[in-house]
Amino acid sequence: MATRKLGLPMRVPSADGLPERVTIWEVGPRDGLQNEATTVPVEVKLEFLDRLAAAGLSVLEATSFVHPKWVPQLADAERLLAGLTRRDGVRYPVLVPNQKGLGRALAAGVRDVAVFASATEAFARRNLNSGLDAQFDMFTPVVTRATAEGLAVRGYLSMCFGDPWEGPVPVEQVVRAGRRLLDLGCGQLSLGDTIGVATAGHVEALLRAFADAGVDPSVLAVHFHDTYGQALANTLAALRRGVSTVDSSAGGLGGCPYAESATGNLATEDLVWLLDGLGIEHGVDLDALVATSAWMAERLGRPSPSRVVRALTG
Amino acid sequence: MATRKLGLPMRVPSADGLPERVTIWEVGPRDGLQNEATTVPVEVKLEFLDRLAAAGLSVLEATSFVHPKWVPQLADAERLLAGLTRRDGVRYPVLVPNQKGLGRALAAGVRDVAVFASATEAFARRNLNSGLDAQFDMFTPVVTRATAEGLAVRGYLSMCFGDPWEGPVPVEQVVRAGRRLLDLGCGQLSLGDTIGVATAGHVEALLRAFADAGVDPSVLAVHFHDTYGQALANTLAALRRGVSTVDSSAGGLGGCPYAESATGNLATEDLVWLLDGLGIEHGVDLDALVATSAWMAERLGRPSPSRVVRALTG
Repeated sequence: MATRKLGLPMRVPSADGLPERVTIWEVGPRDGLQNEATTVPVEVKLEFLDRLAAAGLSVLEATSFVHPKWVPQLADAERLLAGLTRRDGVRYPVLVPNQKGLGRALAAGVRDVAVFASATEAFARRNLNSGLDAQFDMFTPVVTRATAEGLAVRGYLSMCFGDPWEGPVPVEQVVRAGRRLLDLGCGQLSLGDTIGVATAGHVEALLRAFADAGVDPSVLAVHFHDTYGQALANTLAALRRGVSTVDSSAGGLGGCPYAESATGNLATEDLVWLLDGLGIEHGVDLDALVATSAWMAERLGRPSPSRVVRALTG
Repeated sequence: MATRKLGLPMRVPSADGLPERVTIWEVGPRDGLQNEATTVPVEVKLEFLDRLAAAGLSVLEATSFVHPKWVPQLADAERLLAGLTRRDGVRYPVLVPNQKGLGRALAAGVRDVAVFASATEAFARRNLNSGLDAQFDMFTPVVTRATAEGLAVRGYLSMCFGDPWEGPVPVEQVVRAGRRLLDLGCGQLSLGDTIGVATAGHVEALLRAFADAGVDPSVLAVHFHDTYGQALANTLAALRRGVSTVDSSAGGLGGCPYAESATGNLATEDLVWLLDGLGIEHGVDLDALVATSAWMAERLGRPSPSRVVRALTG
């Protein structure tokens, strides 16, 4: 297919109040790799991060300081950060689950962290061994110390649309939990559709509820999974509501195209293709990114779930 | 994953002028199967059509009367139509490429046909052995006879966004070609993104241009391919512009999940999931449809490219 040579997609900026620029929050090295069956050597991760930065991505969620027992794929967090060549203008946030994780991150010289909360009681109990309210007791000292140390803190809020145990999640409940994370001191809130059940109308309703609660869309990010094929349509709905930070995963890392259920993150390449078509700036060199994802797919021994990667490397 | 039992996705109708009801124009039996490597026996096609109708799809593009040399997968068009049990309230349109094809269709008792035109010079020359203008000389007697016989006629317009030889296609050129098909007597015009390069802003721009040219969105349909993962986001953009007929293919037929480049149609199940979430009526029983696509995937010896099918049958 010769389409890339022809400079497609055609740039046709939409008039409907879309942001001029979007920040892509690249989660492949953390959220992607922690969900891959294959554990990647630290040298490969370092090359991956460097290639992603070279491709123009300005936020790379590098790793997680969760206990290695839970996420063995990221057990090398200290070694990774010690080996990282930081590029100017690039942020390398890491996930910290608790005070111990924050301590490890600070010792490794991290300046940018993210905490992970649940919007539902059931997921808080299962994933965090905590209740919906009690989880904030766990985060408060983490966020307080991080902000006191001058770190940027992002709050992830998971199960914002549906929960496998509770079903659809009322938007008011999500807004309440999100407001608490922001009030604690999180500078950004990433709204996660952890099981991929969101649809465009639900996304709009949730973002409208946040606006009604006085939360500016500039502090919000969206984090969609493509379980039911809705991730990019949901992203489009969020952009129309003024959101300008979008989480995605290079090559769709974390979702396996051979698996019966492909539950991976939105692929960064598919997002870039949409943004290019809408004339929205993002700073990413698509060819360099596709080459990087194709290279990583070889390391993982399976094709990329990203449609753009498959179309451009076919 | 227990999500289906919980009745997800949550229905959150959007306020932004979406249609209340969408007609799904199911192209799997024709556009899907003609692009599959495996040729399916006529008995399987008949069962497929009957199961799709039983699942609530009201328009089933059944086959094509193109010369068997070009599309051997559909060489059984006469046998298929002779064996078809037509259900009340279900339309079974067929593709007719020329006068000879129309003659065969009429002899087979068809009441609903579609013609296939190109929006670009290059594709008209390659696919139709004709020029952009000259192709209308070919269609005029076909559409004239079909309407005189009281048939409903749909006009497909391909390469409406990009063309592999010409690159991006100007919207004015597409509107001009589309107007000619409507003026000839086509009751509906399906705008095709044959190579999957459309993005949401481009879709909006094209539909705006049709509106400016006095074409009501009620006579338009959209036909997207998921080559670059944009099909559902493009559909959402079209719904917002008032389009209420959407082409899709059960189980994403025509696109192979193992191929390096997945160029298939939008999967009907992924579309239904979006429409369900938006509270838009469509009449389809998703579980019955998913079961049908899973059954057909077995006949074809490969998994379905539809994310919804994979998620719900995993």
